[in-house]
Amino acid sequence: MYREGTIRTYLDDAASGKPAPGGGSVSALAAALAASMGEMVANFTAGRKKYTAVEEQVRAALSGLTGCRADLLELMDADVEAYGAVSAAYAMPRETNEQKQARKAATDVALRGAMQVPLRIMRRCAQVGAAAERLAAVGNPNLITDAGVSAILAEAACAAARLNVEVNLKFLADAALSAETVAEMDALTARTQAAREAVSRAVAAHLGGKA
Amino acid sequence: MYREGTIRTYLDDAASGKPAPGGGSVSALAAALAASMGEMVANFTAGRKKYTAVEEQVRAALSGLTGCRADLLELMDADVEAYGAVSAAYAMPRETNEQKQARKAATDVALRGAMQVPLRIMRRCAQVGAAAERLAAVGNPNLITDAGVSAILAEAACAAARLNVEVNLKFLADAALSAETVAEMDALTARTQAAREAVSRAVAAHLGGKA
Repeated sequence: MYREGTIRTYLDDAASGKPAPGGGSVSALAAALAASMGEMVANFTAGRKKYTAVEEQVRAALSGLTGCRADLLELMDADVEAYGAVSAAYAMPRETNEQKQARKAATDVALRGAMQVPLRIMRRCAQVGAAAERLAAVGNPNLITDAGVSAILAEAACAAARLNVEVNLKFLADAALSAETVAEMDALTARTQAAREAVSRAVAAHLGGKA
Repeated sequence: MYREGTIRTYLDDAASGKPAPGGGSVSALAAALAASMGEMVANFTAGRKKYTAVEEQVRAALSGLTGCRADLLELMDADVEAYGAVSAAYAMPRETNEQKQARKAATDVALRGAMQVPLRIMRRCAQVGAAAERLAAVGNPNLITDAGVSAILAEAACAAARLNVEVNLKFLADAALSAETVAEMDALTARTQAAREAVSRAVAAHLGGKA
């Protein structure tokens, strides 16, 4: 499992001629980085006298972000496994009609699985972006640029994960599933974009219009 | 050095109530992830018969990206060190006028150093974005979504690093340095945004307009 390994091994394998980790897995790690920055802001806010009025919502954001980060690290590995399942299905024999049918059924199942992983990453990105927005508004303003980094990376990880949903959707060619998934992705994308814009405005105001 | 450590330790420390790693360091790692995805595309292109016409530029992009990734991993740690230097300078005594002057001089030097790290991250992001754009145009189209992930993360890491330049610039209050730095940052930001847009268009065309 990459999540128990070193930064260097993960990056070396991602950069290499190995088929995985690829874009979906990398999106999950980028989103986990986003979550960690939100947690940092919360950890410099919670338990301080100055912020007792917002203590409860900051603790809720913190616990949500910690959960997201754990999920995202699992998804970083799950994406590698899902890719392996797709490759295995494609490698099935296709000489007889029966084999062709079995292969088609197996690739279909594997592609649906492979599509779910980046979609779940996108859902976590939307949660991370929303938490960053809340923390930029009520958290310790000394860390507002860290809330900014969180919202920026959540938006980007969401957009990056989306490409990995779409490439699997394309191969599935299931119109009903596609329409439903695109609608959900549009909502998640809009959520992370709105968070990035709101936090960027807050950071710019804090830095005196220089951002 | 975090770059020799595990993913989990880095994320745990980033999320914690420790002052570093913060947003600058995290931006560097996000940019290193972007570089690794460009390298992956290049590694699935270089050395293949189908792409001999672009072999030279793909190899050049690959070697540039590998260099960027190594630099970015160093910058991930350099940002933590630069933050430590700023904190140490602020912790200097300030009772006598001489002490105040020495402290002012030390914080000034430390802040200039702390500003340089995210600025160097931004420069690498611009290189990574440009390489992703080239690879999306000439590389193996089976990996075009990975080029997309590279360009998206390069743009986001650049924007995230920028916040960490700006927060240091604010404390420096040096108008000449500020103007020069803002002009360079604007150019780097525009470069990464243009790359993200160009690659996103190329990916959307490849996926049949679904992106």
